[in-house]
Amino acid sequence: MKGRLGEFELIARYFAPLSQGFPGACGLEDDVAALAPSPGKEFVVKTDAILAGIHFLPSDPGGLVAKKALRVNLSDLAAKGATPKAYLLDLLLPESIKEGWIEAFARGLGEDQEFYRVHLIGGDTDRTPGPVTIAVTAFGEVPKGLTIRRKGAKAGESLYVTGTIGDAALGLRVLKGAFIGLDESAASFLVERYRVPQPRVFLGPRLLGLASASLDVSDGLVADLQHLCKASRLSAVVEAARVPFSPAARSLIGQSEEERALALSGGDDYEILFTAPKEAAGRLARLAEEFDTPITAIGAMASSLGGKHSVTVRDEKGRPLDFARKGWTHF
Amino acid sequence: MKGRLGEFELIARYFAPLSQGFPGACGLEDDVAALAPSPGKEFVVKTDAILAGIHFLPSDPGGLVAKKALRVNLSDLAAKGATPKAYLLDLLLPESIKEGWIEAFARGLGEDQEFYRVHLIGGDTDRTPGPVTIAVTAFGEVPKGLTIRRKGAKAGESLYVTGTIGDAALGLRVLKGAFIGLDESAASFLVERYRVPQPRVFLGPRLLGLASASLDVSDGLVADLQHLCKASRLSAVVEAARVPFSPAARSLIGQSEEERALALSGGDDYEILFTAPKEAAGRLARLAEEFDTPITAIGAMASSLGGKHSVTVRDEKGRPLDFARKGWTHF
Repeated sequence: MKGRLGEFELIARYFAPLSQGFPGACGLEDDVAALAPSPGKEFVVKTDAILAGIHFLPSDPGGLVAKKALRVNLSDLAAKGATPKAYLLDLLLPESIKEGWIEAFARGLGEDQEFYRVHLIGGDTDRTPGPVTIAVTAFGEVPKGLTIRRKGAKAGESLYVTGTIGDAALGLRVLKGAFIGLDESAASFLVERYRVPQPRVFLGPRLLGLASASLDVSDGLVADLQHLCKASRLSAVVEAARVPFSPAARSLIGQSEEERALALSGGDDYEILFTAPKEAAGRLARLAEEFDTPITAIGAMASSLGGKHSVTVRDEKGRPLDFARKGWTHF
Repeated sequence: MKGRLGEFELIARYFAPLSQGFPGACGLEDDVAALAPSPGKEFVVKTDAILAGIHFLPSDPGGLVAKKALRVNLSDLAAKGATPKAYLLDLLLPESIKEGWIEAFARGLGEDQEFYRVHLIGGDTDRTPGPVTIAVTAFGEVPKGLTIRRKGAKAGESLYVTGTIGDAALGLRVLKGAFIGLDESAASFLVERYRVPQPRVFLGPRLLGLASASLDVSDGLVADLQHLCKASRLSAVVEAARVPFSPAARSLIGQSEEERALALSGGDDYEILFTAPKEAAGRLARLAEEFDTPITAIGAMASSLGGKHSVTVRDEKGRPLDFARKGWTHF
């Protein structure tokens, strides 16, 4: 301890206040939280860990790291049609972390809790000789049995994506010193998209009854679409020209084929990729308007030939594009 | 990758089989798990992380580490009266970890799954530049609103503990080279108690309706009793002579006051400490018999004087013992 904040003081000062308003959390003064879904609902749960030096920069401020840790999980819930309710936090910190960083971290969580209407209900804090490591387990609710899965797409259905694709992958390149001469506002837009995911938390649950299969785009559009195809036992064709890019991304993609490939196969988009029958088009257009968020048809699902569930991305002339790198795997 | 097992292969080969039999886990082939408690029940959830070099030895075999990671969480559920159902796993591994270790880790989980009747329902695997880091989030079920809390004890009630106390703390000392000359079977018994917790998974839920407050002993008997006292706004008196010690622990405690203090204040016991009214004594005795596990009355709860919720441990002559170290905190 030696004048440092002890584990119990840390929890009492910074984290217990984040559990207020959720009775089953017992103010983080018990060993467990108790919770049940609302009548007719089930829980959807997801856990994802982020580490300094891998998923964020060791110099990133605490508030930003907190939001990333929480939002990568909320993104998965949203893609499944779930409304987030609560989360658990494992927070492993090296000795070198200052109390100010922890304070900013807790404040970042508090801001996101208010915005996304979730509560911290439990967790664990520990010292680590390794990098800052944060595992969040998020709980969402969905009407019983209606969780939107990776499987469930049908041949002939349209393939949609929310928002824009590739910003985060290009933003990471900007941070690494690429694209010298890029317009400053474009550069900071892309970097922001990498640093702070904007999960489709409120839009996601509105896809219930519309989307037949879905997942969030975190490994990269092409890789995640392959996951969906494999689970649904279908193939997919994407029209590259229809994939929505932000103006900032477009200014880079116009210059080189390589950047387009990066945008299509890079990760960390945290948009929702989903399939829906043709009849859903009108309702999806109204949803896009209501949320002021593009929902773009980028291709279609098709039966697989010979048991191979493939993803084809075609350019404007119908020629298939090749991707050396199919997305992120963490190993 | 370079010939190494990729993330997806790792999951498919070693972890997906552990999700069989739990439909909401989708064979770990989706982004989330879906689950709901049985009718009339609620979930009790707990997350705890363990790290190599802190909670286990870097040289410990994978199977043993897996069991420790899972059981420290199951112990919390048990102390709350919950029956474990499922768990999520964040597994962060350094590059140096061999596939054989991972295979042993998964096999260890499989053995515990069968024994404790739980399923792996999701998780995250990643590389870390730090030590092996494992966060488990465990889900148990309890009849709605009946979760046994730290608060709820009443003045005059008896204080009980399951099993024996202090073995793990003494076992850790043995591992560090202390107690030269200790009988070999006693030494290995104590070390085993440190290495592989034996949570009271089947006994715990039987305390529903008997225990008024409870928690598992992981920070040390004295420190955990202080948590219970603080939450229940009571004080406690423990008779040191009534605290149950194993024959191995007793052979050391007989020699020195210091070892008795260590046993009473050391951590990692994973026994259940609980309060119950006097009328429960008969039913608790029958429970102890049924489970072939000591359930020992070690003291009593009392009103607090002056708002100070204190723990007093008295020796055979009624003199209060002093503890320099009140238990583990992780910071």
